[in-house]
Amino acid sequence: MNKSSIPKGTRDFSPIEMSKRNYIFDTIKSVFALYGYKQIETPAMETLQTLLGKYGEEGDKLLFKILNSGDYLSKLSDNELQNGDSLHLASKLCEKGLRYDLTVPFARFVVMHRDELQLPFKRYQIQPVWRADRPQKGRYREFYQCDADVVGSDSLLNEVELVQIVDTVFKRFGIRVQIKINNRKILTGIAEYIDEADKIVDITVAIDKLDKIGIDNVNAELAADGLSAEAIEKLQPIISMSGSNEEKLDVISGLLKDSEIGQKGVEELRYIFGVLKNIGLENELQFDLTLARGLNYYTGAIFEVKALDVQIGSITGGGRYDNLTGIFGMPGLSGVGISFGADRIFDVLNALDLYPDNAVSGTQLLFINFGERETAYCLPIVSKARSCGISTEIYPDAVKMKKQMAYANNNKIRYVALAGENEMKENKITLKNMVDGEQKLVDADELVSIICNEK
Amino acid sequence: MNKSSIPKGTRDFSPIEMSKRNYIFDTIKSVFALYGYKQIETPAMETLQTLLGKYGEEGDKLLFKILNSGDYLSKLSDNELQNGDSLHLASKLCEKGLRYDLTVPFARFVVMHRDELQLPFKRYQIQPVWRADRPQKGRYREFYQCDADVVGSDSLLNEVELVQIVDTVFKRFGIRVQIKINNRKILTGIAEYIDEADKIVDITVAIDKLDKIGIDNVNAELAADGLSAEAIEKLQPIISMSGSNEEKLDVISGLLKDSEIGQKGVEELRYIFGVLKNIGLENELQFDLTLARGLNYYTGAIFEVKALDVQIGSITGGGRYDNLTGIFGMPGLSGVGISFGADRIFDVLNALDLYPDNAVSGTQLLFINFGERETAYCLPIVSKARSCGISTEIYPDAVKMKKQMAYANNNKIRYVALAGENEMKENKITLKNMVDGEQKLVDADELVSIICNEK
Repeated sequence: MNKSSIPKGTRDFSPIEMSKRNYIFDTIKSVFALYGYKQIETPAMETLQTLLGKYGEEGDKLLFKILNSGDYLSKLSDNELQNGDSLHLASKLCEKGLRYDLTVPFARFVVMHRDELQLPFKRYQIQPVWRADRPQKGRYREFYQCDADVVGSDSLLNEVELVQIVDTVFKRFGIRVQIKINNRKILTGIAEYIDEADKIVDITVAIDKLDKIGIDNVNAELAADGLSAEAIEKLQPIISMSGSNEEKLDVISGLLKDSEIGQKGVEELRYIFGVLKNIGLENELQFDLTLARGLNYYTGAIFEVKALDVQIGSITGGGRYDNLTGIFGMPGLSGVGISFGADRIFDVLNALDLYPDNAVSGTQLLFINFGERETAYCLPIVSKARSCGISTEIYPDAVKMKKQMAYANNNKIRYVALAGENEMKENKITLKNMVDGEQKLVDADELVSIICNEK
Repeated sequence: MNKSSIPKGTRDFSPIEMSKRNYIFDTIKSVFALYGYKQIETPAMETLQTLLGKYGEEGDKLLFKILNSGDYLSKLSDNELQNGDSLHLASKLCEKGLRYDLTVPFARFVVMHRDELQLPFKRYQIQPVWRADRPQKGRYREFYQCDADVVGSDSLLNEVELVQIVDTVFKRFGIRVQIKINNRKILTGIAEYIDEADKIVDITVAIDKLDKIGIDNVNAELAADGLSAEAIEKLQPIISMSGSNEEKLDVISGLLKDSEIGQKGVEELRYIFGVLKNIGLENELQFDLTLARGLNYYTGAIFEVKALDVQIGSITGGGRYDNLTGIFGMPGLSGVGISFGADRIFDVLNALDLYPDNAVSGTQLLFINFGERETAYCLPIVSKARSCGISTEIYPDAVKMKKQMAYANNNKIRYVALAGENEMKENKITLKNMVDGEQKLVDADELVSIICNEK
């Protein structure tokens, strides 16, 4: 006898969870499509050549590697077997790995199919990714990513559209959010302004902690990072600035008047704010200088979305990157993208009880099975209900009524149809509404119309 | 520079392929739901304990195994490293593998969640599976399976429903099919009747070749398999029987009058034919004694579906199995299921050009970008079109008209909207129909209504 279990950090999804997840993905997909994004899928496995070196040293370790098929040992000398370390040996034992995100496979896709693609290319992709992270609450070894990216266009209209997509998606979910935006060029300008150009990562990491640790600790951390007292002093108006997006941009613009890249960043943000102000958004768009995600690859806009009514981390993020495909030999292709965090959105919708009823409903009508004759009587009515689009079951076995009603209850089936001797004589069915308990003697047409009007 | 490639036997799916695949999966899903089947998903990785030994020796070799994370070598002695064979060593290097089908993970799911599940449990599951098979035309190392199963009910109504599901799915696709059905109990009865009970696999394999090699070669093969002349003689009326389903069942029933299991099989088929005759099917249901798939696990009905208008192998198959979960310590649970071959259905729909237009359409409307002022004028109209459900893009860059029109053409966008000096003065847009070339000067409301009426 085998014990039944699944690898740690992975999950089964039950029917009710699947309904909710489908609701999430379908909502996001329909908005992506409304904006002209096209879906692609890539294989779960990529060559390790594609994957390695793209996610830093830590990322390489977190890749799930696939043991070569067949006689995978033959490529190894005895000496290598005896003395090789785990990482070296893995590169001999394995040629493939599971994808770690959707961005690198997308870059590989663009390069591989560049002759067929029409640029700009607006793609979305919703697939699982795998990471050999230590599992913990809310962190899984298999989880879905839900990405939309445009490559092959520098235009800021793409940033505008991605903000609109975010705004529309969360409006449809009924989740109130704050959309945060920053610009990497402004961060670079700041690092220039205080003459600490090589400290940009330290600076942004420290500023990012402002909410958690306060200004004094941020300053202490900056000092510990090796910033001069002068540089820290110059940073103060920036760290503590407040007011509207426009006011903050004015402060930055004034301080960075001599930084070309800083001014470019300010201009970009001003354009995005201006256009979106005319279009109108449901949710607030906020310039947040402490937003410093993805600094290794983002080169322009940086996005992040926070739910207003639930305490949870970022539920969506993204930004512009200028050299997505360079590593695969196709330089100069700019892109900008957004990634929805499906697992966290799932948690937020649960916490706020925002799933619409029809998103999570299954079977609408169950016919009770009283035996072979009654079943023969019911089956044409079952077919009729289905042909009218009503999700219908007939209980397959003629077991005790109580058991069949329990099945209806546990599966949250709204209507139960019963046909015994009396109903058959009258060519009718008893239709029971399981919510209010009401029973009606109806013919097949009435049955269909009652349930269809309910929908 | 990295070469961009994907592992052999795997595929990328382009937007047009994704549209077609989504059409296939959505159609099948909607029929599953109409019959009360509920979706689940299981992780891509299962423990090797779950997977090994379930698919025969050959299957074990075809499993993709995941190298353990971290210091996976520490579990191995030098001696094991030096002298272990590939298969033994793999069991030390790997604890997890990629799922090989959806049936074993489903069995594992049922056992693991048995306390939460309401039986009978009707589930469907559409996910990729992985097999380290030698790739060839039409055979991939990653492909989707599309399964529906009921467990926890012996009732033949489940078989009836599965045939109805198959019939409805192919009706919706517009693919004419022949649905073949057989019963494992009849095959067992035949083996008993000719007193070669241990030769059932050989017999069915030989009978299965009748179409290809003819009766003489089948008999020769049976002789080579060690069947006595007498047994082969007794098989003749069975191998060469013809006529309607009822006529064939009569022949079998007469011959197997002393075989209890054989009679049971005949009864089961008669019941299924009888019920389905009353309900009515779009496609032909044919009793096919040569149908002998899955004999290792099927115990009752066996299904297979062939397309009538395209030469291709089976596009759907399934059957009843009596001990799905026994291997995981939960005996006595009967199940019956069906699996749609999405890749082959994709090929059939392509060959017959059966995709509906709206299944493969993307963006409906493209706004040409003439520059910043024109864009500012267009954006509110873009928003209006989207809020009416029209999939709309605005070209992000103010590049040459020709390039933007090429984008519309290559993406098969039906309508193009242009607004220059003149249109802006009149508060209108020029709407060009890319199919017939017609241009109209319209306001925003007219634009929306023209495109919505087209849909």
